[in-house]
Amino acid sequence: MKTFINDNFALQTETAQELYHNHAKKQAIIDYHCHLNPEEVAIDRQFDNISQAWLHGDHYKWRAMRTNGIDERFCTGKDTSDWEKFEKWAETVPYTMRNPLYHWSHLELKAAFGIDKLLNPSTAREIYEACNEKLRTPQFSARGLMSHYNVEVVCTTDDPTDSLEHHLAIKKDAFSCKVLPTWRPDKAMAVEVPADFRAYMEKLSESSGIKIVTYSDVLKALRLRHDFFASVGCKLSDHGIEEFYAEDYTDHEIDSIFNKVYGGKELSQSEILKFKSAMMIEGAKMDWEKEWVQQFHYGAIRNNNTKLFKTLGPDIGFDSIGDFSVAKNLSKFLDKLNTENKLAKTVLYNLNPGDNEMLATMIGNFQDGTVAGKIQFGSGWWFLDQKAGMEAQMNSLSSLGLLSRFVGMLTDSRSFLSYPRHEYFRRILCNLIGNDVAQGLLPASEMPFLGKLVEDVSYNNAKGFFGF
Amino acid sequence: MKTFINDNFALQTETAQELYHNHAKKQAIIDYHCHLNPEEVAIDRQFDNISQAWLHGDHYKWRAMRTNGIDERFCTGKDTSDWEKFEKWAETVPYTMRNPLYHWSHLELKAAFGIDKLLNPSTAREIYEACNEKLRTPQFSARGLMSHYNVEVVCTTDDPTDSLEHHLAIKKDAFSCKVLPTWRPDKAMAVEVPADFRAYMEKLSESSGIKIVTYSDVLKALRLRHDFFASVGCKLSDHGIEEFYAEDYTDHEIDSIFNKVYGGKELSQSEILKFKSAMMIEGAKMDWEKEWVQQFHYGAIRNNNTKLFKTLGPDIGFDSIGDFSVAKNLSKFLDKLNTENKLAKTVLYNLNPGDNEMLATMIGNFQDGTVAGKIQFGSGWWFLDQKAGMEAQMNSLSSLGLLSRFVGMLTDSRSFLSYPRHEYFRRILCNLIGNDVAQGLLPASEMPFLGKLVEDVSYNNAKGFFGF
Amino acid sequence: MKTFINDNFALQTETAQELYHNHAKKQAIIDYHCHLNPEEVAIDRQFDNISQAWLHGDHYKWRAMRTNGIDERFCTGKDTSDWEKFEKWAETVPYTMRNPLYHWSHLELKAAFGIDKLLNPSTAREIYEACNEKLRTPQFSARGLMSHYNVEVVCTTDDPTDSLEHHLAIKKDAFSCKVLPTWRPDKAMAVEVPADFRAYMEKLSESSGIKIVTYSDVLKALRLRHDFFASVGCKLSDHGIEEFYAEDYTDHEIDSIFNKVYGGKELSQSEILKFKSAMMIEGAKMDWEKEWVQQFHYGAIRNNNTKLFKTLGPDIGFDSIGDFSVAKNLSKFLDKLNTENKLAKTVLYNLNPGDNEMLATMIGNFQDGTVAGKIQFGSGWWFLDQKAGMEAQMNSLSSLGLLSRFVGMLTDSRSFLSYPRHEYFRRILCNLIGNDVAQGLLPASEMPFLGKLVEDVSYNNAKGFFGF
Repeated sequence: MKTFINDNFALQTETAQELYHNHAKKQAIIDYHCHLNPEEVAIDRQFDNISQAWLHGDHYKWRAMRTNGIDERFCTGKDTSDWEKFEKWAETVPYTMRNPLYHWSHLELKAAFGIDKLLNPSTAREIYEACNEKLRTPQFSARGLMSHYNVEVVCTTDDPTDSLEHHLAIKKDAFSCKVLPTWRPDKAMAVEVPADFRAYMEKLSESSGIKIVTYSDVLKALRLRHDFFASVGCKLSDHGIEEFYAEDYTDHEIDSIFNKVYGGKELSQSEILKFKSAMMIEGAKMDWEKEWVQQFHYGAIRNNNTKLFKTLGPDIGFDSIGDFSVAKNLSKFLDKLNTENKLAKTVLYNLNPGDNEMLATMIGNFQDGTVAGKIQFGSGWWFLDQKAGMEAQMNSLSSLGLLSRFVGMLTDSRSFLSYPRHEYFRRILCNLIGNDVAQGLLPASEMPFLGKLVEDVSYNNAKGFFGF
Repeated sequence: MKTFINDNFALQTETAQELYHNHAKKQAIIDYHCHLNPEEVAIDRQFDNISQAWLHGDHYKWRAMRTNGIDERFCTGKDTSDWEKFEKWAETVPYTMRNPLYHWSHLELKAAFGIDKLLNPSTAREIYEACNEKLRTPQFSARGLMSHYNVEVVCTTDDPTDSLEHHLAIKKDAFSCKVLPTWRPDKAMAVEVPADFRAYMEKLSESSGIKIVTYSDVLKALRLRHDFFASVGCKLSDHGIEEFYAEDYTDHEIDSIFNKVYGGKELSQSEILKFKSAMMIEGAKMDWEKEWVQQFHYGAIRNNNTKLFKTLGPDIGFDSIGDFSVAKNLSKFLDKLNTENKLAKTVLYNLNPGDNEMLATMIGNFQDGTVAGKIQFGSGWWFLDQKAGMEAQMNSLSSLGLLSRFVGMLTDSRSFLSYPRHEYFRRILCNLIGNDVAQGLLPASEMPFLGKLVEDVSYNNAKGFFGF
Repeated sequence: MKTFINDNFALQTETAQELYHNHAKKQAIIDYHCHLNPEEVAIDRQFDNISQAWLHGDHYKWRAMRTNGIDERFCTGKDTSDWEKFEKWAETVPYTMRNPLYHWSHLELKAAFGIDKLLNPSTAREIYEACNEKLRTPQFSARGLMSHYNVEVVCTTDDPTDSLEHHLAIKKDAFSCKVLPTWRPDKAMAVEVPADFRAYMEKLSESSGIKIVTYSDVLKALRLRHDFFASVGCKLSDHGIEEFYAEDYTDHEIDSIFNKVYGGKELSQSEILKFKSAMMIEGAKMDWEKEWVQQFHYGAIRNNNTKLFKTLGPDIGFDSIGDFSVAKNLSKFLDKLNTENKLAKTVLYNLNPGDNEMLATMIGNFQDGTVAGKIQFGSGWWFLDQKAGMEAQMNSLSSLGLLSRFVGMLTDSRSFLSYPRHEYFRRILCNLIGNDVAQGLLPASEMPFLGKLVEDVSYNNAKGFFGF
């Protein structure tokens, strides 16, 4: 019997197999959006065991464990050993069949550790020890793993006030993989809690050396940091937003709103929206000036579980998909920038797949012929980063835009083990095309072009688009 | 040529066939949500003919007939004979190809009556008579049919003011199938028409023996009835709501709102929402205290056709799928209960499949590890109770949660003939898994676990979750 | 190797092939909604070259070219030659693989010109010349093409003020294909810009001979034009609306609103909605009186790109899919007419596929048994007019209504070359049914009925429904 993760995993047709093995597989990885901790690359972290690399910080796995009836202490608890956590995870793995975790886990065991066995309670100990033994070797350090996976570029996600010391340190080392920062100014527009905003402004003032008194000081400070990020190699911005903000406003209004919230007073909902709208536009213009690519991740409802948010904080698995109407505001936001000839290259990521078609047509409104695929419909994000989600995104993009010009996959991950998500994506891409050829919906005679398409979406498009 | 409904109907792969025949088929039926009339079980109703059992009260069939150009008198008319109705239905059946009615009808003819012929005008008379002959025998009484289908538990849907006399009568008979009530307090929060609400409150007062003057009297009365339902074996509540109500309110506000509507004055929209929000929370707490499972069916727009609503009343086929945004309110509602540690086990049913992914991720926010699958994404409801709808629900649940922990199918039906919907569901479930195995997306080596998964989703999960 | 567009293109099963070749293929085309320019039929336009017929005015192709990094001057530019445009289009074609343009283009090359070669830079010149040579022959005039494609009826889209001179001219010629006008009164309810509305009212006054002073004059004028359209053979109305307008209003309010806007004053949002609501109802009643079919195309967000809208005007490829909530208003609108017994036969087209299930159930609320399929869920519109979009529409309609009563395909096109979209639709329809039969979900024994179903959806249903 073939192993589960075998050469032709997820490749149903001969065409798919040919496309994957001859075109996709050999491409290097450009991971243009992730949440790796750059310090771990800088110090070239070595992991004591697989739980540290796999389970500490992986909210996907925690959600599955909670759903499987596993107590919180085996997820985020401090009083349980790494083995105990792994054991509970192994117990959960068979129950994740049909969930991406089942594929991801076995792809990672295979790709990083060469393990073919399925993870379950009866194999847990053996797999735990086999992984741990390898993890203690130099080839399995943070950098070792990145090299193993043929990662060429990684873009982390960083606050404007970040010193980028780890990026600078990595640069000095001449590590074969570029590790670049990404400008993520979410906190600069988080005006909901005046005290938090004030604290952030003070941090921004410190990091930029600009004394902040007025709104224009904020812009000055941000611009200095923006310049600094650019000097460290930043090529992208990123924004995590619930909805698109595209209120009309005057500079005078924004000045007053800033003064109010900076002075410690709570803003009205309308003022919050205006302020965010202004910050979005100002940030977008800076990105355009530097020829960066701006990314927007929208549509999540975060921290739904107040009880555990208070105990454990954000990003521990209590976020979910929202159902906002965004089309008109999104259009207005992009149009405003386009009208001023200041619309940067853009990648839009939705969290609700119900937006796929809206988004796949929205990008078409602002393609201007200057760059192929100037406005991108981003690959299946977060909850949608699974087979059905990626297929839906690629199918919508294909039917309503050009798949051939897609910049492809990113991991969005915190883990050095999750690069096989690129492998998974590429297999799915090749499989979609293979199925079309098998059904006569794409011409079998065009294999050279299809091979090129697969290479482009796997690597070349991102390389050119982001300017790495 | 094989008969249409044959052993391997809807089972495309050998794996699917093995899973169905060796694991799914033999499981008893737990029908934890339906609209059977308990009186018909109590008196063990015998049907004169198939029209009575099949067509009287089946709004799915009426909708199809109207769409097929059949006059209303053959649907809900009083002046047409049962045969005439059947004849018109038989005329419509071929036109329902690709609609679930085509599968349901032939599954029911086969499973209950052993009829392999396809229903159409040329077979109508023969099938009508064959069914009627059988229906007059004792094995085809209400209870006979339930035994025939191996139904172990049935939960009906009942108003808090209901005497539950029929449930009590059935209990005394020691009928092999448990017939339990479900608490459905929709009318207690229907404050739109003051006179209707007043009338309902008087009914509640009478059934509970509590004199109702204030809002706290309402809660007292409801709690007494809730206790009574529990004493008769109730394990579930159910709620039919357009949207989730999660307004902030004070007890004082609710007291005043109650006084106003009870006094005959129309409420403002804001007052209605506050009152419903309060009732939802109070009911949810009662359910939590008794360790019941609460169910929410949301998102229908009912009685769209005013002309026929006025003539024929509700539930005659003029309802449809709404397009409400519910995520934020749903989150707030569940979060409020969770924060107070009073969130009962919950099943959420959406009517718009566009909510599938939102819902499949929302449940993950409140899984707390105490019970596997504590918060459930309910099986395809109403319009979604068909092959594509069930597949979409199971696929979303699989990709975004754990299919393995799903409590599975229910009929939601008014008919003693519709238990083959469980068979249909199980075939579809086995088929999905079989396809995944055939494509190498699930490991063929794990057939024992997959067999268990199928048994769990068909029977064990519901049995344990609801505590039958 | 088989040619790409071969006899069995998109027909995966033998059943599909049998249904297509024996039932679908031979049906004439009824193109009940399109945007052909009737003048081009009247004068029997001859095209100089394929760019004129294919690229001038095709916003689908322009969007793809812009996305492919092609400069605007090769799309809408005046200073580029037809050959240059064609060359750039040919360069783009391979990049459209998986987009409907790839199928459409090759279907059109095959069906009209008998060309089997794939269009790309290396075949561009050859194909350009081969097409041009044919286009200069009489068989390839506007009428020649319509005859070639076996087009029986075409309904154009016309403003109430249109003289319909070209329709009248064609009628006189006794051209074998009926070319009928469609009543599209969008401008009569476009009250956003008072001056534009005033100008349109003056045009309406002129064309009707009615002096317009009050709102009732508007209705009088429209009714006269409506009568005139009927006299020229009009059987359908059509409406392009963002959302459904179903505000309550009084005649007195509408009188005042009319006076205000006619007098040059801007209306409030509420006044605009009331006015549109009134016009929708009044128009619907006229359609009902004449037993016309009313069509509603809703849900587009138009002219998203202000910069190019100002330069190039509307309908040049800067529209996209909206995400409006429409169910309640749509229900209210239809219910109001139904309550007054004035609900005409209706076709509803959504642009966001997220509305498919809502819409497929909404139509069921107003089926009244008088006509099979009285309320229709229209075929995949615009962005949804592609394989996945048509399949999704037919699958939703099948599961939630009756596919068998569907009036089927229309081109919605401006081009005489795009009739193969009917062929494409029919192949997809046959393929869906073929797959169901292959999987045992439809009985193979019922091929005669399935053949009839395919013929009905391809031709008979439309013929009867619209009364051609």
